Amino acid sequence: MAERLVVIGGDAAGMSAASQARDRRGPDDLRIVAFEKGGHASYSACGIPYLVGGEVTDVKDLITRRPEVFRDELAIDLRLDSEVVEIDLGRRAVSVRDHQGGGPYWEPFDQLVVATGAVPSRPDLPGADAEGVYGVQTLDDGIALLRALEEKPRRAVVIGAGYIGLEMAEALVRRGLKVSLIDAAEQPMSTLDPDMGALVADALRGLGVEVFLGERIEGFAESGGLVTAALTENRTLPADLVVLGLGTRPNSALAEASGIPVGETSGIRTDRRMRTPVEGVWAAGDCVETFHLVSQRPVAIALGTHANKQGRAAGINIGGGYATFPGVIGTAVSKICEYEVARTGLTTAGAAEAGFETAEEIVESTTRAGYYPGARQIKIKMIADRRTGRLLGAQIVGQEGAAKRIDALAVAIWHEMTVEDMTGLDLSYAPPFAPVWDPVLIAARKAAKRVDQLNRED
Amino acid sequence: MAERLVVIGGDAAGMSAASQARDRRGPDDLRIVAFEKGGHASYSACGIPYLVGGEVTDVKDLITRRPEVFRDELAIDLRLDSEVVEIDLGRRAVSVRDHQGGGPYWEPFDQLVVATGAVPSRPDLPGADAEGVYGVQTLDDGIALLRALEEKPRRAVVIGAGYIGLEMAEALVRRGLKVSLIDAAEQPMSTLDPDMGALVADALRGLGVEVFLGERIEGFAESGGLVTAALTENRTLPADLVVLGLGTRPNSALAEASGIPVGETSGIRTDRRMRTPVEGVWAAGDCVETFHLVSQRPVAIALGTHANKQGRAAGINIGGGYATFPGVIGTAVSKICEYEVARTGLTTAGAAEAGFETAEEIVESTTRAGYYPGARQIKIKMIADRRTGRLLGAQIVGQEGAAKRIDALAVAIWHEMTVEDMTGLDLSYAPPFAPVWDPVLIAARKAAKRVDQLNRED
Repeated sequence: MAERLVVIGGDAAGMSAASQARDRRGPDDLRIVAFEKGGHASYSACGIPYLVGGEVTDVKDLITRRPEVFRDELAIDLRLDSEVVEIDLGRRAVSVRDHQGGGPYWEPFDQLVVATGAVPSRPDLPGADAEGVYGVQTLDDGIALLRALEEKPRRAVVIGAGYIGLEMAEALVRRGLKVSLIDAAEQPMSTLDPDMGALVADALRGLGVEVFLGERIEGFAESGGLVTAALTENRTLPADLVVLGLGTRPNSALAEASGIPVGETSGIRTDRRMRTPVEGVWAAGDCVETFHLVSQRPVAIALGTHANKQGRAAGINIGGGYATFPGVIGTAVSKICEYEVARTGLTTAGAAEAGFETAEEIVESTTRAGYYPGARQIKIKMIADRRTGRLLGAQIVGQEGAAKRIDALAVAIWHEMTVEDMTGLDLSYAPPFAPVWDPVLIAARKAAKRVDQLNRED
Repeated sequence: MAERLVVIGGDAAGMSAASQARDRRGPDDLRIVAFEKGGHASYSACGIPYLVGGEVTDVKDLITRRPEVFRDELAIDLRLDSEVVEIDLGRRAVSVRDHQGGGPYWEPFDQLVVATGAVPSRPDLPGADAEGVYGVQTLDDGIALLRALEEKPRRAVVIGAGYIGLEMAEALVRRGLKVSLIDAAEQPMSTLDPDMGALVADALRGLGVEVFLGERIEGFAESGGLVTAALTENRTLPADLVVLGLGTRPNSALAEASGIPVGETSGIRTDRRMRTPVEGVWAAGDCVETFHLVSQRPVAIALGTHANKQGRAAGINIGGGYATFPGVIGTAVSKICEYEVARTGLTTAGAAEAGFETAEEIVESTTRAGYYPGARQIKIKMIADRRTGRLLGAQIVGQEGAAKRIDALAVAIWHEMTVEDMTGLDLSYAPPFAPVWDPVLIAARKAAKRVDQLNRED
């Protein structure tokens, strides 16, 4: 009899796992059922802000694979609108509620992949359930927001200045709304150091976004069930539309309730093959806890690229192969209108938390040779261990052509390079792509000099 | 008495060395005289094609530091139009001919930096000295070409399809000329594998350049001393203007004649501190031989970024500090209209020469998420050791946003990463910057699979 694989969650991690398992084991050997509680599977959640902003004009463009492809070509029994409400590890079955009205029914498994994603942090505040208050977690959220835009709202308030909040602020500015952005932190993008975040705040203001930092949201005013304003500790901001971009946490409650162990980040614990401590149960994607290779601590980072890699590893392993997910170093990039923002490794605060004392430098340069048309500003911050000069983290804020340089820095961090060693790196140079000293090399030189100074002072 | 430093060559390497030495030792401790045979010092030779093409409109933009800055602010006695014609290591002096009519005179030194750059390969062919046949080595060459364009030439022939030839072909197309390109090789850009070079050939043809590959140049027809056509083994190509882009070789004849050892590449031999085997004599820039970290063989690569790093290292060492140039891995990038071309490490042929058997893959993807506006084509080739999977080389041909990815690949090669290990790299992802699987990761996955297959076959 075929082994039975059940996958909970039909997005990147779950469907990657299902596809990879299928790739190695035919339908006679492995029966695969995947449950997705929403109406869409295998879509790019990261694309939602661009759907709302209008850069992407068709919802279908965000769907990586249509449900029929899974069913017809991969023999994966993908069931949409089907929410798993309980995992019974003793019976080795999941209980499923069909949103079309069926169920609940029990579906048995031999192997289980938990890929339940993340849940948006939703403030427990008066008025947070009013109509007009939107999350941006699922494609259904994005579609709801698109519909709301048809009502021609004029004023929007975005809560949270993390990358999703910023992308949504840009999207709404593009749609012609007057946008206010609120965050309790002193600078946007808490994944950056405040000195680099301040550059992002300036950029946002330059776009006409009204930015309220260091200001706590206290609730929402409503009228007839409809949101009318966001209320902070200092002011009332009239709003036809509110977008919550307060970050996410691992959606691990279902797993935890069944007895699958979660870690200190509330993400599901797995080994590097994506096995949970429970035999035959795997987990992947935004719902898991992973390992930060620089801080050497558990972290939960919701990001499509990790979800895909983890799901793929789980699926290969279920399929009888061998694959691992080695951990993360916190690389991320985003675009806010013409500004590009990227980071990798640890921030100054993160490095301190992990026990490092740091040497830091920020340099300003250009993305191309200064004389070449289209040369744009780029600022790079490097954070190094003050004794060894090991690169611990890097951040980039700049314009076109700036941010993807973070990848070279990520590979350097991956290999525990010192900033001194980095000064000798053979990076590409030609006037349309870099000054003769690439900004990465300039930053490395300055950071190496700073490490040197600090060591002399000791 | 102050020590006397003489620098031969006033471009990137020489002036970096002089500046760094000055940075650490004042004029009372070190007297610095720099000789430049041309009329300009410290300019971006890499910028010449953009001056000819019109993207850069003012010659001055290519001058990094004006001569007065060296003289007045750095107390460096920079002498333009001054050609060193002999180095006497016994007398420890150089003989200088002043192009304004003075000299020759002897200038003594305690320390000497040879930074004589490269000489263009100029074919020893009938008519090669005719008026209208231009090199593109020095800023003076660029200025001469600009003047020639004022005569409204209609047809140009570019000899050599290396990156300088291609950049010049583009520049002349921009100026409205009908351009033919000739190279004896079967594909342009011999620094790429032929399969990737073929993509560049297609791109050139798309721009309207007439491309003759596998065709040898035999000479030039002239009339009254003026070039009128380029003659290949197969045809006569009428030309009002001929540009020689046949690559360069180290300009080491002066050094060699004096007894400073040159290596098998004809580049001057140095250690990693840029010391030649002759006490007190240093060399840096296009005239030196350096070490290729993957092939572990000597190479001579003329590139501004190496020249700057080597000059800087020499200058720091002369100044009493400690700095090294660790060698190269052959990273390079160039832009031909909307096409971006980059490479690092070894080509297939280079890997074979160095004794490797290889596993290879070419993948095609997009620079951004497929649904995001401005997503462009990118092709990446990876060349790995067939047994260990170690990445030996990578090549990229694509459009906007493609090429700078080579830097992450360069850092991976620098650390002798395997393609399997690379599949786990935490590279940046967001829809405006990459598909959820960055093309680099896709290429690594495919290459790892290929290595796996080959190992199974053994």
